[in-house]
Amino acid sequence: MDPKIAEKVKESFSRQAYMRTISASITQIDQAQVEIQVPITPSISQQQGFAHAAVAFGIGDSAAGYAALTLLPIDQEVVTSEMKVNLLAPAVGDRLIAKGSVVKAGRRLIVVQAHVFAQAGEKSTLVALMQGTMVPVDL
Amino acid sequence: MDPKIAEKVKESFSRQAYMRTISASITQIDQAQVEIQVPITPSISQQQGFAHAAVAFGIGDSAAGYAALTLLPIDQEVVTSEMKVNLLAPAVGDRLIAKGSVVKAGRRLIVVQAHVFAQAGEKSTLVALMQGTMVPVDL
Amino acid sequence: MDPKIAEKVKESFSRQAYMRTISASITQIDQAQVEIQVPITPSISQQQGFAHAAVAFGIGDSAAGYAALTLLPIDQEVVTSEMKVNLLAPAVGDRLIAKGSVVKAGRRLIVVQAHVFAQAGEKSTLVALMQGTMVPVDL
Amino acid sequence: MDPKIAEKVKESFSRQAYMRTISASITQIDQAQVEIQVPITPSISQQQGFAHAAVAFGIGDSAAGYAALTLLPIDQEVVTSEMKVNLLAPAVGDRLIAKGSVVKAGRRLIVVQAHVFAQAGEKSTLVALMQGTMVPVDL
Repeated sequence: MDPKIAEKVKESFSRQAYMRTISASITQIDQAQVEIQVPITPSISQQQGFAHAAVAFGIGDSAAGYAALTLLPIDQEVVTSEMKVNLLAPAVGDRLIAKGSVVKAGRRLIVVQAHVFAQAGEKSTLVALMQGTMVPVDL
Repeated sequence: MDPKIAEKVKESFSRQAYMRTISASITQIDQAQVEIQVPITPSISQQQGFAHAAVAFGIGDSAAGYAALTLLPIDQEVVTSEMKVNLLAPAVGDRLIAKGSVVKAGRRLIVVQAHVFAQAGEKSTLVALMQGTMVPVDL
Repeated sequence: MDPKIAEKVKESFSRQAYMRTISASITQIDQAQVEIQVPITPSISQQQGFAHAAVAFGIGDSAAGYAALTLLPIDQEVVTSEMKVNLLAPAVGDRLIAKGSVVKAGRRLIVVQAHVFAQAGEKSTLVALMQGTMVPVDL
Repeated sequence: MDPKIAEKVKESFSRQAYMRTISASITQIDQAQVEIQVPITPSISQQQGFAHAAVAFGIGDSAAGYAALTLLPIDQEVVTSEMKVNLLAPAVGDRLIAKGSVVKAGRRLIVVQAHVFAQAGEKSTLVALMQGTMVPVDL
């Protein structure tokens, strides 16, 4: 993978103020695979004290979007067209880890997935499975 | 609607620290219909400066969940099972307004919708359409 | 609406052999709104004797796709990119009626909905709610 | 896996008249994994001559539902609550093969996936990716 692509992903991520608001960081950038983590803290909790589904959704969506971005020319970026999430288990533990990947990169649309895990010590639990569509757009 | 139900919704919302983190507030609670708003500020933006899709998702999901909650006995709450969002337009303007409603309340599952609008002055634009499933659980 | 558009929709529908296989017919074509019906017969049933979800999906998807097609130039057609269905009630009765409509027609993507009803005598029950994306393609 | 479970799956499948209408057959039954095939013939085609999305959806949904069923007690069956499909490529070739599997089996809900492939000679292409929810119900 062209190192410029990883730079583009990092630079784009750094412009996402929302990601700073929830203390998310990008922890891996490979071709068609990107990982984003967020610590589970009280400030992102829902009414039962678990991490909010919107946070799992947010890092899953971003990880999947950046996975798509690694396959595009340097002068394009992506926007999410649609995303579906099935929530599988309460998001409890130390951190959430979203692994985004590309299922099919078409010319006009890129179908993506994300697996979001909650890590508590050594234990990792799949808490959300996401499937959606990214659209390449010119910068 | 029993005023205790509106109290339960408000009390549950107040325990969602994530909603405070993004400065969301609950602005209407009717039977099977709940509205949540969030000001569009730099702290919730994505890389292009629009409100992040995760915020639209978060308030839409919560508005839909609380719409479902208004139909349940006082000793139950809901969890999101799955949710799908189609993003229709960039989330720009003064605030996001999510209107959650119930499509079909079954005994075991409640199918819900949310319409999320971006309001800029007098102008309101539908930016996200959501469709999902809530599951009643005992408190 | 240009009468040529209705002709194009009918002509396209007539080429869908699958629609003949399940005895579906197109019963209304308006701008951004198309209706397709199918009689509920044993040949389209699932194991409990209800109409199969794939049939509700099929006519809902087609009604939504043709609703999108009514908004396009004469030399384009649409393909389904993605579709989500929530099943709300058993599909029992005399016929299924799918009403497809357009939520948002963008330049590159058209977001659509379909409501599928089961009609039994005078009674009509919403059995499926669908939300998806159509992509315009050149003929 | 208890051989009675495989019998239950086969017996249920044989009662799906719709599956006979489209000439589908069940070709593999393992714990949490079921495969269904259908020959691509003119009678299941859409307007461009490809297999109709409703057929891919139908066999994917059934394969996923039966995958869930293999994990349930003998006196239960499943109904589809919701299903989302992303269509990835035209369904052309000799046959469609749907591989359904279980992502997470909860007490009240079972999250499932299906991969649908179009096989043309030796070549197999992923044409649809599906993600949904099954609900166990008493017989």
